[in-house]
This record gives sequence, structure tokens and C-alpha cells, in this order.
Amino acid sequence: MQFNGVLDQLKIYEAGKPIELVVREYGIEAKDVIKLASNENPRGCSPKVLEAVRAEAAKMNLYPDDSMYELKEALAKKYAVKEENIIIGAGSDQVISFAVHAKANPNTKVLMAGITFAMYEIYALQTGATILKTPSAGHNLQEMLDIYKANKDISVIFLCLPNNPLGECLDTKDVYAFLDHISPETLVVIDGAYQEYASFKDPAKKIVPSEIIAKYPNTLYSGTFSKAYGLGGMRCGYGIAQPEIIKALLKLRAPFNITNLTLKAAIVALSDQAFVDASVKENFEQMKSYEAFAKELGFNIIESYTNFIVLEFDASKNSGVIAQKLMEKGIIVRNLGSYGMNAIRVTIGTPEQNARFFELFKTIYK
Amino acid sequence: MQFNGVLDQLKIYEAGKPIELVVREYGIEAKDVIKLASNENPRGCSPKVLEAVRAEAAKMNLYPDDSMYELKEALAKKYAVKEENIIIGAGSDQVISFAVHAKANPNTKVLMAGITFAMYEIYALQTGATILKTPSAGHNLQEMLDIYKANKDISVIFLCLPNNPLGECLDTKDVYAFLDHISPETLVVIDGAYQEYASFKDPAKKIVPSEIIAKYPNTLYSGTFSKAYGLGGMRCGYGIAQPEIIKALLKLRAPFNITNLTLKAAIVALSDQAFVDASVKENFEQMKSYEAFAKELGFNIIESYTNFIVLEFDASKNSGVIAQKLMEKGIIVRNLGSYGMNAIRVTIGTPEQNARFFELFKTIYK
Repeated sequence: MQFNGVLDQLKIYEAGKPIELVVREYGIEAKDVIKLASNENPRGCSPKVLEAVRAEAAKMNLYPDDSMYELKEALAKKYAVKEENIIIGAGSDQVISFAVHAKANPNTKVLMAGITFAMYEIYALQTGATILKTPSAGHNLQEMLDIYKANKDISVIFLCLPNNPLGECLDTKDVYAFLDHISPETLVVIDGAYQEYASFKDPAKKIVPSEIIAKYPNTLYSGTFSKAYGLGGMRCGYGIAQPEIIKALLKLRAPFNITNLTLKAAIVALSDQAFVDASVKENFEQMKSYEAFAKELGFNIIESYTNFIVLEFDASKNSGVIAQKLMEKGIIVRNLGSYGMNAIRVTIGTPEQNARFFELFKTIYK
Repeated sequence: MQFNGVLDQLKIYEAGKPIELVVREYGIEAKDVIKLASNENPRGCSPKVLEAVRAEAAKMNLYPDDSMYELKEALAKKYAVKEENIIIGAGSDQVISFAVHAKANPNTKVLMAGITFAMYEIYALQTGATILKTPSAGHNLQEMLDIYKANKDISVIFLCLPNNPLGECLDTKDVYAFLDHISPETLVVIDGAYQEYASFKDPAKKIVPSEIIAKYPNTLYSGTFSKAYGLGGMRCGYGIAQPEIIKALLKLRAPFNITNLTLKAAIVALSDQAFVDASVKENFEQMKSYEAFAKELGFNIIESYTNFIVLEFDASKNSGVIAQKLMEKGIIVRNLGSYGMNAIRVTIGTPEQNARFFELFKTIYK
């Protein structure tokens, strides 16, 4: 059977290995496996969320409130915007998918940093658009601007602030200066999946959605409950933009795109800011031990504004081998070899998980 | 801002009113609202699923196993197929979305019954394809064949067996005879969302996925956990087809497209067939009371092979008014006025819910 031509450009996505797979493949007990590969919150989620979801579970037979009234109301309050400025997605990457499908097509191009969140490219390829990346790995706004000026048919630009999988983050004032040069017809997606971390570490990195969409009506801010809120397994994110953009994206949203337990989890999660604050604070306390560890072992790190850190190795070592050896010991990290880097990305875990990582890493790194 | 032209054809989906909205709008207490609008299982879900989900909730911070190994294994066993024959979606309608996006495009047409599941048309319009519907409301295979022969560019055909929102169902032998005339290049989606009900009521309606995909490699069977399994709020469905089709659809699946609690719920749900059997049995026992009620009040019904029933009114009554009056009394049903029918679709509820429906209906139907 013949399928649409765009499928020729697409590969089947292979996600990071889950704990279950390491248990199956290496015969390690689940309790001994430490997953530092997917930037999940190692503290779990708010106990209030856990309690609320367990109560709500009795309603699993019922479809969710597809208007998502309560969740939009809570988000609108948090971000000082209106409900008409908000769309909910199954993870912020579904919002990103809607954005790309609303704007990109085979006659347009999509611009992003040299190394950034992999789904931008995948969604863009689904539309048949051409992918443009900066020569630099991280966000280099001058390179982006040069490419933008040289190409009149760029429909979407991605700024990942801070950037996954590298951890770097632009200053907001530089982002604004960049946006001054972008046509109101080009959609700029500001991916704030790790903004809770970046804005805590350095206020100069903080993106205020209500401000950025007011100053630049062609921007879409996306946020997620998967990271600081500790709800990666529940698949919930949101987009904030001018109503004109939200209306277009809503046309691509299928009904009931998140579960009713997800809806409840997200609503209650927004009521427990103390959990998020404590998670973010501990994250950066623990990150110091990774920085010290890297110094001790003599490898390079990229300064991180997220809940993960990239460890770069010199040519005498191979990041793929290191990641594999760690996995055989029960520690799952993300090898960045597929990005052309000799590096691994490690999620900052709990103090106990990090201590175990340092201990095991030393046994395999010789 | 300009968006892609296909969006001009699309409307923002308005789902049926959830209980929360009726509570807000009409000031009725949530416990007094009966929702018979979305064909949810009124018995809830299996107690085993409830217990398992509550335990799994402690892992909401972790992304699900994106290989969905255990769920595919359980489905493969149930349906006597291989894991390579299976794709998992956030509801079977996400699988249907992948199918449409893999095959349809602005140069092709998509064929379906005159009145059938609304999402077929919405997904097809997203691709820019042309929609073709039979003149008859329900499935008329001769009409479908005539249209198919008159149009060389039909990429996808939908058969909804049994058909939502009407309730009618083709015999499997007639479906096979129809498929004999369809090109191997045309994808035929067999939507089996309500197959648990139809195959119980009449074995002549039963579709066996392993058999249909073997005889007709151009078919895709879709099933769901939203109806008989009582997990509408958890968004889980599946597609069964030849590996060639599954591989194409997997390219359009974003990672982590269902939650980890959904994954657990679906796996455990498959282990409790007794719950499904009891639900389906009670459904048809209760349907008899609707048939008797319709006879008593003198309105027409469409014989139903599902967990809902369509009540048709004569010209002296208006289905929209009836649905509105019921809602003001706290009973939510689906008005089929938007399908050009003077009818409502009522989900078969629990004995108590149905008794209340009959009682309240009589007070508003004069």
C-alpha cells in the first residue's frame, strides 16, 4: 500500500528506555534501577495531586470536561491572561504539534537551533516543511537572524528557553531584541518546558507569557506539567497566545485530548506552588554536586538552567559506551551521540540517586 | 496571521456537555445529574483496574513505557495477532487520525456513511481531502460501492460497525462481500468501538480482527477501552492491521501518546473479561426497557447493537427542545438535530438511571 509522501521523511520515534525495559533486558530489579534519562521530577508529584487523582479514579469511565474550564481558569489566573489565550495539550509537545500543523506546509521552512528538542523537527517533517538549523549547537540569535533574513518563507521559529537537551538559556532581553526583527506573519514558539528552573536560577531568563504575547502577538508560549510539577506520566501541557492563534490551534485539537485524571492532576498541581518551589530549589542544590563531580573527573559541562546536566567527554572516551555501561549497572541516562556530541545528558535526581550515580560512574569510567 | 488553508474548512469541536457544566449552568447538584450523552459505561470500570490505577498513581512523575510492551502483548494474545500488528492511540479516534493522515491528502477522497462518527470527517478535512457520504443515513453497501466505482481517487473508506450515532450494524458476511470489490490500495477502517456489544447481541455482526486483516490486508480494525471496558476518561484505543500499515501509522504517533495510568488501566482491564461480559449483558437487558418505553409513548427507535439507543420523534416534536428540557431536569442526552434528524441518542444507563430517565421524560414530553 502506498502512503502519503511525507511519511518517507519520517522515522518511528524510539523513546528513551523505560525502567521496565532495563528490568527485562538486564535482569536488574525495578527497585535498583535509577532513571536519569527523561528529566522527570525525582521527588514525584505533589501529595495533594496524588490524593486528588486517587479519588478521581472512580470516574475513569467518564469523559473529561472537554471545555477544560477549571484548568483554563486556574492557568489564566496564574499567568494573568484570559481563558481565550489558552489551549491545553497532551504534553506541551502536542500544542507544538498543533502550532506546526497550523502554519507549516511543503512550501515553508521551519527554523530552530542546531541542537534542540527533537519533536520540533519531527512535527515539521510531518507537514512536508523544510528544516533549517543554525550552525551552532545552542541558540545563536545572530545566526538565526541571518538565516531568517536569507529565507523569505520561514513559517515557524522555535526558541527553547532553556534548551533541551543542552541546558543553556538565552536572556529574555536578547529574545525581545530578536523578536523585533521577525515578521508578524511568522509564528515564534517559545518553549518554556523548563522555565520554572531557569527563572529560579536567573531572573534574566524569565519569560512572562502575558508580556511576550502582548509585545509580540506572533508568539506562542508553551508550558508543561511534565517537569517541575512532576507529572510527566500524565501528559499535560498548555499554550498561551493571542486568541487568533489559539482559535487556529483549537481547530486541530481532537476532543478529549487529555484524560480526566490528567485534568484533575493539573488543576490540583497549580494549587501547590510550594511543591514546585521545593523541587526547583533542591534541583539546583543537587546540581552543584554534579558540577563538583565533573571538575573532579575533569570533564566539561554545559551550564544548565534546567533539571538536567550535560557531561561532555574528550576523544579518549565514548559517550555511547559510557551510557551502555551505566545501563548495565541499572542507571539510565541519555546518550547524546545521535546529536553528534560525545556527551551524556543526566537528569538531576534525588540526593540518594545522585550519590549512587557518582559511585557507579566512577566504577565504569576509567 | 495567516494559517494553512485547510483550517478554513475546520470548526472548533464542541463536545457534549459534561456534568460540571450542567452543574454550573443550571444549578443542579452534581449527584442529581445523569449523563446519558457520551455512551460511557454506567457501571464504571473493573474494580481491579481502579485498584491498580490508584497504586500506579505514585508514579505519575514518570513517563510511560513508550514501547507499550505489556499492553501490546496482552492485546496480541487476546486477538491472536502479533505485536507488530498493533498500534496504541489516545482513544481509537487517535488511531483513526493517524490512518487518515497517512493516506488522505487534497488529491484524494474519503468515503463514509451518510450519518456516522463525526471525527472521520474532521480528520479527513484536516488533510484537505474531499468528503463523500452515502445518500442513506446508515451503512448502505450498495451505495458505497456505487460511489467507490464512480470515483477513482478514494484513499480511505470508513465502516463503523456498529455505527455511532445510529446504532445499526452490518452483517460481517456483507462486509466481506463489499471488501472483495475494494482495491488493495484503498485503506478500509473498520471501527469496532462498540463491537463488544454488537458481537454479544448477534454473532453475525462479529468482526474477528485477525481474520479480516488476513483476508483483506488493506483493512485496519480499531477498538477502544472507552465503552465496554468503562475507561472513556482514560483515552485508550488500538489499531490492528498488517505490519506495513502499522509501521506507517507509527510514524505519525508522537511518543508518550497515552498516560502511564492509562497504560496500567488498559493492561489490567484486559485481565477482567468478567466485568466486560457483565456490563454488556446488563446493557441489553436494560435496552429492553427503552424499547418498551418507546412503544408505550409511540415513537420510533433504530434497532441498536451498541450501548445507546436513538429515539426518533414525529414532526409535532422537536428533538432540540426535548434535549434542552431534559438537561434542565439534570439529564444529559445527545440531540441529533445537527445530523438532520429529529431524534435524540440516549446511552443505556444503570437500572436506576434509566428509571429516572423514563420518569422525567414523561414530565417533559407532552
